[in-house]
Amino acid sequence: MPYRAPVDDIRFILDKVVPIAPVAATEHFAEATPDLIDAMLEEAGRLCDQVMAPLQRAGDIAPPRLENGALRSTRGYGEAYAKIAEGGWIGTAAPVSHGGMGLPQTLNMAVQDMMSGACLSLQLNPLLTQGQIEALEHHASDEIRELYLPRLITGEWSGTMNLTEPQAGSDVGALRTKAVPRDDGTFAITGQKIFISWGDCDFVGNVCHLVLARLPEAPSGTRGISLFMVPKFLPGPDGKPGAANTLRVVSIEHKLGLHGSPTCVMAFEEATGWMVGEPNKGMAAMFTMMNNARLGVGMQGVGVAEAACQKAAEYARDRVQAGAIIGHADVRRMLATMRAEVFAARSIALACAVALDMARATGAKDWGDRAAFLTPIAKAYGTDTGLRVAEAGVQVHGGMGFIEETGAAQFYRDVRVTAIYEGTNGIQAMDLVGRKLADGGEAAMRLLDEIQSGAETVRTNCPDLAEAVWSAAESLRETTEWLLAQGTRDRFAGAVPYLHAFALCLGAHFHLRAAAAQATRCTLAEVFIRRILPRHAACLTEAREGAATLDALADEDF
Amino acid sequence: MPYRAPVDDIRFILDKVVPIAPVAATEHFAEATPDLIDAMLEEAGRLCDQVMAPLQRAGDIAPPRLENGALRSTRGYGEAYAKIAEGGWIGTAAPVSHGGMGLPQTLNMAVQDMMSGACLSLQLNPLLTQGQIEALEHHASDEIRELYLPRLITGEWSGTMNLTEPQAGSDVGALRTKAVPRDDGTFAITGQKIFISWGDCDFVGNVCHLVLARLPEAPSGTRGISLFMVPKFLPGPDGKPGAANTLRVVSIEHKLGLHGSPTCVMAFEEATGWMVGEPNKGMAAMFTMMNNARLGVGMQGVGVAEAACQKAAEYARDRVQAGAIIGHADVRRMLATMRAEVFAARSIALACAVALDMARATGAKDWGDRAAFLTPIAKAYGTDTGLRVAEAGVQVHGGMGFIEETGAAQFYRDVRVTAIYEGTNGIQAMDLVGRKLADGGEAAMRLLDEIQSGAETVRTNCPDLAEAVWSAAESLRETTEWLLAQGTRDRFAGAVPYLHAFALCLGAHFHLRAAAAQATRCTLAEVFIRRILPRHAACLTEAREGAATLDALADEDF
Repeated sequence: MPYRAPVDDIRFILDKVVPIAPVAATEHFAEATPDLIDAMLEEAGRLCDQVMAPLQRAGDIAPPRLENGALRSTRGYGEAYAKIAEGGWIGTAAPVSHGGMGLPQTLNMAVQDMMSGACLSLQLNPLLTQGQIEALEHHASDEIRELYLPRLITGEWSGTMNLTEPQAGSDVGALRTKAVPRDDGTFAITGQKIFISWGDCDFVGNVCHLVLARLPEAPSGTRGISLFMVPKFLPGPDGKPGAANTLRVVSIEHKLGLHGSPTCVMAFEEATGWMVGEPNKGMAAMFTMMNNARLGVGMQGVGVAEAACQKAAEYARDRVQAGAIIGHADVRRMLATMRAEVFAARSIALACAVALDMARATGAKDWGDRAAFLTPIAKAYGTDTGLRVAEAGVQVHGGMGFIEETGAAQFYRDVRVTAIYEGTNGIQAMDLVGRKLADGGEAAMRLLDEIQSGAETVRTNCPDLAEAVWSAAESLRETTEWLLAQGTRDRFAGAVPYLHAFALCLGAHFHLRAAAAQATRCTLAEVFIRRILPRHAACLTEAREGAATLDALADEDF
Repeated sequence: MPYRAPVDDIRFILDKVVPIAPVAATEHFAEATPDLIDAMLEEAGRLCDQVMAPLQRAGDIAPPRLENGALRSTRGYGEAYAKIAEGGWIGTAAPVSHGGMGLPQTLNMAVQDMMSGACLSLQLNPLLTQGQIEALEHHASDEIRELYLPRLITGEWSGTMNLTEPQAGSDVGALRTKAVPRDDGTFAITGQKIFISWGDCDFVGNVCHLVLARLPEAPSGTRGISLFMVPKFLPGPDGKPGAANTLRVVSIEHKLGLHGSPTCVMAFEEATGWMVGEPNKGMAAMFTMMNNARLGVGMQGVGVAEAACQKAAEYARDRVQAGAIIGHADVRRMLATMRAEVFAARSIALACAVALDMARATGAKDWGDRAAFLTPIAKAYGTDTGLRVAEAGVQVHGGMGFIEETGAAQFYRDVRVTAIYEGTNGIQAMDLVGRKLADGGEAAMRLLDEIQSGAETVRTNCPDLAEAVWSAAESLRETTEWLLAQGTRDRFAGAVPYLHAFALCLGAHFHLRAAAAQATRCTLAEVFIRRILPRHAACLTEAREGAATLDALADEDF
């Protein structure tokens, strides 16, 4: 059985667990009626199953290559991309004013989840374009928006982000690419960028690079960075792609996975660019792009986990070793864990999307803070779940899991990067305990209140499960207070385990809601709350350890 | 800095943590003086650093291939193998009577640890030969031993094990390969075998396949399986390889990792074989081979973890992102965790080897039981540590970790199979809670007693750490008693988390010993006991959950 997009699971979550109804009830998203959402999920699911999933292996076996400097993508990707574009899936959440559908991010993210499970390396292409659309929408001049947005939204052109340089990865402020102003208002961009996903693409009319660079005499660090639109072809007065810009793909990286998506080294040689936003304010614009992308990457983790889970379950149902192996207790343990984790990660990510939509529709600060708090959790836990579930998926397959033709190993390889790009999961966790607790823990405590009052409402029906979730939230509250009283270094030393504990608690909360809403969901909730949630205690213990022991080790001791 | 074999760490463990002295004090191993062990570790370390480690990437990039049915191994492997053989490293623990050195397994396993870190795919070749030597030593006729053992021990010939068939993986009893007796006392072996590591080899004079097959009219299941020696070339009266046997490599698998080691599909077409051991008792002989190999595979996990840890630490010391990243709290957390886990896994595996040696030298049942109990833990925890540490190693590298040229990803791919082959880690755990608790928990309790009395002896100096270890052992005692009172299915449902909890407790115990022996080891012990050991509680909670929840899920729910 090939991949089947999890339309029903998503629908259940958006109906009962993380209701999309309040979003649809806003004036801003009045178009997003339940019927429309249903129909779109169905339609996207079909596209994933029939068009994208068949390309999953193709990109791995026959990755894009450079031919005389021109990129040739995997056969079939262009046709599938055309169908994604045709269906309007690139502009689902983009502004109506430029041809988008203006629908909730929640719907868009649910679609990204399904597309990631179907074919991650192709899905990454439109996901990046979506990030660019958002950045331009918020930061670009009217002129740039008029020119680029409609073409990006229809998928006629694609978008990339160019941040990283060899010496400037997580430390973006160290970048050196130069932007020299010209008399005509454009800029000459010169420098080398690495890790540029879909840095070139042969099935779109133009590739639009958003490039971070420094103006002459710009302040050092992140305060001296500006953002530029540097298209592959210079648009003529009619908007049609004209002369080639002076930029090129130097090489394509050999990666552990995600082979279908070319990761490029890019060279800009006095390439023509247009500034996006204010001089030296490039980081703010880039963060807009990255924020969207962070949730999208969390969804990638969830999507791959879903696909890995389906494949493993199917194998376990079919494979006979003294009976179908799905009957073996340890295989069941693995599959149940995988399924329960996918549900938790998906619910968390969709809750983040709902908060984003509510913030946008209502402008309420609380919703904005909620979205900001949940974003690093959705990114890190979503992708960690991708890693865990893909690893377990290989294990369920036994020896066959190690054979590439089986496909389980591809998930394991492909998903690995999601814990790294768009800010490593360590950086997500530092964002959580740093910036996201800078409100004195208000957003955190509000979430914990909600988790505890949720537990109270089901205490009569599921006393044990409710109590476990309530207590987990209480421990989190104590640890949050402890963290708030510490300096940055001790917070950072506990950031990753704290984030993980928060995710477990949230996951348990959503499982509890699911169980309360539908009796058949009780068992999976039990699996999560009784078998997985208890790990939060060890995470919190580690979160409160501080940095002292780590700092007592000499650099040579590792 | 390239890989450096961890000679000092191993020496420290064999000196202070898991003393090899009692082994060397036995008459059987009187040759294994401290000076000799020291000198051999040094010598093996040099071989690993200078000869094997430089081939690590080569096997990955240019894996063995079939040319007109003949296998061509990776360039350089043959020369390196010759040096391994020359150094006597294949026969380190093999009987002196046939040209081996008769030294302790503990020493041999320490060497395997170092070799695995240097070049896993090459190390696997001699490891398999060692397993075959042990099987022949215990089960083969004098004639077969005289013929094969000296040549296997010198490395002139290599050995493989042929268990798996497409329909018979973990369920070995389902195999169908036939063995038909001939008048001359040989057997005609016919069947197909899969997953045969180093199923052919072009740098040895003969490849000796130990093949599981069924005699005509043999009982079904594992009670009808016999073992046969089926060499690639039929030895002539002088022992020289003569005519080619009717067996061949059908194909080489495309694997996730371990590319340098060819994993073959083998076809036997009335190939000539000689029976090893008694008719229908093949499983017993195969278990001898596998038992050795299980500990060896655990060592593979440890060795790769060591190499991944070294590479990540080196990168972190060199990579500057707002200061060397080794100064970042979260990077330090990752590295400290990796280093602490490697120490724990290595100590556990060496403790298992010491128990094996003591059992062999003294014949004492207690030592045999200890070795039997520790073997599945050493295999599963050693390889799980390999997976965890290799994954973290990629993470420390950030985006560079996803690029194959960096080398971190190769560890992540290569080590993945170690959690699967020689019995998946799930099967190891079932062995632990099944057969290894069949003594009513005696071996388990004796270990826990030792852990607790170890904690008592250091309670004055390190009260907190000692108390943590003591309590962890106490919880394990309770859970062990709980498991003993359950039926098989509930035990199996908790097998993997129980094994993991036991490993954590053992790891903490050895860290505590290290801290007591040498003050500079205290910090790493603190890292393990304060940050990692607490996870045992969640493991034990899960171990006591039983199978009921898992069984309440329908097969379609996964």
